[in-house]
Amino acid sequence: MDKFTYQSPTKIHFGEGQIAEIANDIPKDKKILVIYGGGSIKTNGVYEQVAAALSGFNWDEFAGVEPNPQYDTLMQAVAKVKAEGFDFLLAVGGGSVVDGTKFIAAAACYEGSDPWEILHDQAPVITALPIGCVLTLPATGSETNGGSVVSRGKDKLFFGSPLVKPTFAILDPQTTLSLSPRQVSNGVVDAFVHTMEQYLTFPVNAKVQDRFAEGLLLTLIEEGPKALATPNDIAVRANIMWSATQALNGLIGVGVPQDWTTHMIGHELTGNYAIDHARTLSIVLPAVMQVCRTEKQAKLVQYAERVFGITTGTADERIDAAIARTIAFFKEMDVPTSLADVELGAADIDVLINSLEKHGMTALGEHGKLTIADSRKILETAL
Amino acid sequence: MDKFTYQSPTKIHFGEGQIAEIANDIPKDKKILVIYGGGSIKTNGVYEQVAAALSGFNWDEFAGVEPNPQYDTLMQAVAKVKAEGFDFLLAVGGGSVVDGTKFIAAAACYEGSDPWEILHDQAPVITALPIGCVLTLPATGSETNGGSVVSRGKDKLFFGSPLVKPTFAILDPQTTLSLSPRQVSNGVVDAFVHTMEQYLTFPVNAKVQDRFAEGLLLTLIEEGPKALATPNDIAVRANIMWSATQALNGLIGVGVPQDWTTHMIGHELTGNYAIDHARTLSIVLPAVMQVCRTEKQAKLVQYAERVFGITTGTADERIDAAIARTIAFFKEMDVPTSLADVELGAADIDVLINSLEKHGMTALGEHGKLTIADSRKILETAL
Repeated sequence: MDKFTYQSPTKIHFGEGQIAEIANDIPKDKKILVIYGGGSIKTNGVYEQVAAALSGFNWDEFAGVEPNPQYDTLMQAVAKVKAEGFDFLLAVGGGSVVDGTKFIAAAACYEGSDPWEILHDQAPVITALPIGCVLTLPATGSETNGGSVVSRGKDKLFFGSPLVKPTFAILDPQTTLSLSPRQVSNGVVDAFVHTMEQYLTFPVNAKVQDRFAEGLLLTLIEEGPKALATPNDIAVRANIMWSATQALNGLIGVGVPQDWTTHMIGHELTGNYAIDHARTLSIVLPAVMQVCRTEKQAKLVQYAERVFGITTGTADERIDAAIARTIAFFKEMDVPTSLADVELGAADIDVLINSLEKHGMTALGEHGKLTIADSRKILETAL
Repeated sequence: MDKFTYQSPTKIHFGEGQIAEIANDIPKDKKILVIYGGGSIKTNGVYEQVAAALSGFNWDEFAGVEPNPQYDTLMQAVAKVKAEGFDFLLAVGGGSVVDGTKFIAAAACYEGSDPWEILHDQAPVITALPIGCVLTLPATGSETNGGSVVSRGKDKLFFGSPLVKPTFAILDPQTTLSLSPRQVSNGVVDAFVHTMEQYLTFPVNAKVQDRFAEGLLLTLIEEGPKALATPNDIAVRANIMWSATQALNGLIGVGVPQDWTTHMIGHELTGNYAIDHARTLSIVLPAVMQVCRTEKQAKLVQYAERVFGITTGTADERIDAAIARTIAFFKEMDVPTSLADVELGAADIDVLINSLEKHGMTALGEHGKLTIADSRKILETAL
């Protein structure tokens, strides 16, 4: 395994009733802006729990952060933060709200000419407001990492900084019971693909990271379908919630090569056709596995054996079986597994390829060797 | 799974050459006391690397912390810290040095009448000096947790506080190449039993924790014997080092029952007969598995299947096979697996039982239901 530096300082409060812990983890002298999305927290009891926990604190709220949080919306929050002097941000929602709050935290302190530079030019984040979060949709892992994806029109752009890692994260599986089946599916698939993008490369004899990644994949395959079949099973929700956090807090990715090709191509599907993030991943990943089966052979065979118990046949037969099982899992989770499933066809590939080129995605993969032609092959395989 | 709060803020620098990072992680204005053990760091190059990294810092050293760090020795360091005004402690060594440094950090700031109260009366730690560490012996997990075990005569006493978690930990597997085979064995077995004590209880449907624990067990079983057979294989050392940290940083233990019976009985073997800590664990654990096979049945069967691939036979047959495989692994690691192996016999059991009673160890196990009579049965089984 390669050398690495790792730190995950976020304090996690996991389980029923933990929202009350907010009161202990935000200093009393802070002026808090509670940031949320479309208002579902107003109907599922989460807002009331947050408000109760913040009793006695000086706080206000900003609603309306969208899925794929929009730059212009977030900049409205930045204006409010600056005008009214908020100095602690509490994100209440899913990954989009947490990602959006991270950008607000950085942008409110940005001293360059335009906060857009944080996303567009990867301008360094020197200071940021402290953040806490109450997670209501397990999926992105944003609750304990320093990454954020923000959209502006058709562009989905990333920035990351340890300064925007939440100081605390409340993970109460109860809050996920009101999610729609589609949100549950998307969350499970998102966490699954996060794990795969840190796992499915080439072996570097990082045995703990491999075992941990396989443990998350096994858990998501086991629990994901149950969350759809028995939506009130809180133990299932708890396992999914904890898996999603572990999938992208950095731990399984330390010291190993990573390949975020599926995400990069997926982002263009969301940007151009407004397809849910996770549903782009379930379309692209099987095609990546197919097209990159040679460079990923050793890990694909290991995945086949350890995750699906496939131990017979040639390497290619095992890989075929593993891809088929992956697709079967996605179908069980009721997400699309081809471009045809979302009514896209060969004519749309040029649009996606143009976007990839525009965003500089011309050297993808764990070796940085996947060209635009390879991405085209992946999209054609995904037809 | 149960509700929990988890935080592991230690920044980890893992890999060759990472000792140099000390210079970036200790504020320049600190007066540093470097604390180490018997001086092996003077012969394996670690001391030189630390000294080079501390060039330009204001620092001094305190040598002589023993395995099973002794209270009186540590109090000498406390006197030096207070007399000379050190305000940062850098532990360089194995778990004993790190544990000892944690006590020094707490004792130097203790405002009660006698720092012994921290250990003997679990007096709360209100403040502590900041600590960093350079780990040279992977075993105890002390490098990222808040626990410490200190000895005074025959008593081994524990204290814990988040305030003594190291702010950073340097894990360079190269530093472990000079360990003796006995130290390597002890470290692997210690990490293995730490994992077992958080895993081998009863199921609470905590799938991620179970899979992570099993991943560590599988890795230690695979890599431990290799570290003895091919002692210069740095990749093997890296996997062991990372396993040992993950085994006791708290992650696999969140939200699940734990059973530290093996450690509690083992401590009396060390206290009374000066047997290496890990070698007490390899004696006691198989007997605990045997005596507690009914209450631990479900997890023992799961362990048999997932760690050793034992999938046939009755539950009792599988458990017998799993215990036999565990003993075989310990023998491969060249550690004792019975009291006879360390030349103790039936006549010694009373001594150990008396110590357990004296230390209040009268309600052990994940249910708190193991009586002194049960501990006697465990020791008799270990004969």
